[in-house]
Amino acid sequence: MPASLSIPKGYLLAGVHCRIKHDPQKPDLALIMSEGPATAAGVYTQNRICAAPVILDRARTPGDRMRAVVINSGNANACTGDRGMADARRMAELSAMVCQAEPVQVLVLSTGIIGEFLPMDRIEQGITAAAVKLGSSEACLRSAARGMLTTDRHEKLAGRRVAVGGKPVQITGLAKGAGMIGPNMATMLCVVLTDAALRPHTAQQLLRAAADETFNCISVEGHTSTNDSLLLLANGAAADRPPAGADLQAFSTALKEVCEELARAVAADGEGAQHLITIDVTGCRTRADAVAIARTVANSPLVKTAIAGGDPNWGRIVSAAGYAGVAFDPAGLSLKLNGTLLYEEGAPASFDAPAVSRSIRGERDTHVELLLREGAASARFWTCDLTAEYVRINAEYHT
Amino acid sequence: MPASLSIPKGYLLAGVHCRIKHDPQKPDLALIMSEGPATAAGVYTQNRICAAPVILDRARTPGDRMRAVVINSGNANACTGDRGMADARRMAELSAMVCQAEPVQVLVLSTGIIGEFLPMDRIEQGITAAAVKLGSSEACLRSAARGMLTTDRHEKLAGRRVAVGGKPVQITGLAKGAGMIGPNMATMLCVVLTDAALRPHTAQQLLRAAADETFNCISVEGHTSTNDSLLLLANGAAADRPPAGADLQAFSTALKEVCEELARAVAADGEGAQHLITIDVTGCRTRADAVAIARTVANSPLVKTAIAGGDPNWGRIVSAAGYAGVAFDPAGLSLKLNGTLLYEEGAPASFDAPAVSRSIRGERDTHVELLLREGAASARFWTCDLTAEYVRINAEYHT
Repeated sequence: MPASLSIPKGYLLAGVHCRIKHDPQKPDLALIMSEGPATAAGVYTQNRICAAPVILDRARTPGDRMRAVVINSGNANACTGDRGMADARRMAELSAMVCQAEPVQVLVLSTGIIGEFLPMDRIEQGITAAAVKLGSSEACLRSAARGMLTTDRHEKLAGRRVAVGGKPVQITGLAKGAGMIGPNMATMLCVVLTDAALRPHTAQQLLRAAADETFNCISVEGHTSTNDSLLLLANGAAADRPPAGADLQAFSTALKEVCEELARAVAADGEGAQHLITIDVTGCRTRADAVAIARTVANSPLVKTAIAGGDPNWGRIVSAAGYAGVAFDPAGLSLKLNGTLLYEEGAPASFDAPAVSRSIRGERDTHVELLLREGAASARFWTCDLTAEYVRINAEYHT
Repeated sequence: MPASLSIPKGYLLAGVHCRIKHDPQKPDLALIMSEGPATAAGVYTQNRICAAPVILDRARTPGDRMRAVVINSGNANACTGDRGMADARRMAELSAMVCQAEPVQVLVLSTGIIGEFLPMDRIEQGITAAAVKLGSSEACLRSAARGMLTTDRHEKLAGRRVAVGGKPVQITGLAKGAGMIGPNMATMLCVVLTDAALRPHTAQQLLRAAADETFNCISVEGHTSTNDSLLLLANGAAADRPPAGADLQAFSTALKEVCEELARAVAADGEGAQHLITIDVTGCRTRADAVAIARTVANSPLVKTAIAGGDPNWGRIVSAAGYAGVAFDPAGLSLKLNGTLLYEEGAPASFDAPAVSRSIRGERDTHVELLLREGAASARFWTCDLTAEYVRINAEYHT
């Protein structure tokens, strides 16, 4: 395990299989416990239709005495009404029992099938089994990370070390990406743990700021899930004073880096993806303008299929920028793809198309740069290409 | 030819092949002439990056002495700078010459590859050839309609007859849909001809109102083109008095019906499409809310792949409604698919899933109804499903 990935002090983790998923090799329940009370912050889906655990967690964050996070995959507990809410509360109660905490000190995350009730008997067995396995080894961290996954190809972990008041603190994040299980939808979940101390209000501010430039800047197909949740736990086990001044700046940067690494991993592991596409938009009047243009390019099926096909199709990219709803001077627009200038100040540039095509086909990373002449604001966004495999996964899951 | 499809009085049409497209069987240039001056209205793409003919036509409509529309397919004349503008003007001049009109009395439409200059020598030959073939037979109408197409499978024609001041007038429209030629993008073009008389301001109002409920309510993949144009010509050859009162209402309805029939045909003939999906959203506070929800459902790749797979996946549909940016009470949301209730007032309904799946697989039309409890406003939207064939067309066009 890379040094950057160690488990922050005062946390124990476990991942177990409790028969929510069919494959017994795949953990489907994860438990994360903080030995002492931790500050907790959360950022959640903006979908009007949101899952029971999102409703529960939203009411409990920001908070300052959180003790555990319990996560199941394979069932989203979404669109399940009062029974779903009762089940989410029961998950918190069961986890509180094994962690010797109060139910309100537990946060709950679910991902998987929409519209089915949780198999609570299995969940209960899973929580009990996880309690026994709680630990701080690499194996514990990895099994907890795997317990969140649905059809993700890889577990997603990232960490950073920074100093707070001269003491080293650790920030480690676990995430899951876009996946499908049966008739289901993508869900993004992420838990970031730190042994730094943070006040609830600060934790919430830092997490919101990190999310805006990382998880809120990715898409696979643009369909916002009912369950998206990003949690931050800070238990102060490595440094009991909250970071301030330059330490706070360094902590904030490290937190953003952890979120960015995980967000990129989610985009790169999008269903059927063959390319991670990084879109940089510069020269805008406001960051909101830059994000709107980047998001529109990222969500265009024509842009995504062109990259899948290895085609430097600048017409699709500049025309997507044009319908983002942002006012700009078309004569000031330029475009680079993998470093090659394709479109310069409103007109096609001459370039070696086969060479650019080879650069797309030969690399997993594709870099799109849109340069405007409106101002100094910019944004970076990540997405993946759209392949026939994506359609197969999402149209043919019944056959 | 159905009676509803006759050519309005005072118009002559032709479609010819002039070697912009490779296939000599496919017309690629169409000319439409009005024998007398016609009122003209236009509705155009909102893309900031718009093609030369759009810039030209936008300056010429609404107007009251238009004589011709010249259309080429196979080359969009978009992102072509000053030379593209000069080429669009030259197309108008050449067409004016053969129609014995002034250049400002001609509108120009182009569709096809972005970023390449028009082959003006071939265009000139095409206009001359079309002038010789101008006529008012069914063959002339159909060849003109085919001259607009790119990869559309079918030509798109629709017509209605209504009375104005006791005299029968004809409304006939020609449209093209989403198509690709090489490294290219979708373009929607439509010309509606009528032998009724209309004042420019009225023509513009009627066309804008019709577009808002028809062409502005369809999508294939949500990528707004650089060339979208909808034109209305009204030459008064069948009735010299503009419609008023009940006649105006009837005319407006007939115009909207023609636009709706063509818009539906565009959605149904989307690239790779196996289903035409009609989305009705009712019970909203405003029509804008209803359109936003319908558009978000229509553009969700998860919804579109579910329909392609014959799956009544209500979770994807209600969650798409949830991220449309419209405030509503989730407990008041219901969903029907092909007439079967799948989701009732915020909770899953019990239904015969295999039967609903069979109804999707067995029919080309799929009907999605989302019922809210916020108000009395509603909207209808059309889209198509997302198939592996769509990805193949748009990723593998080079191979």
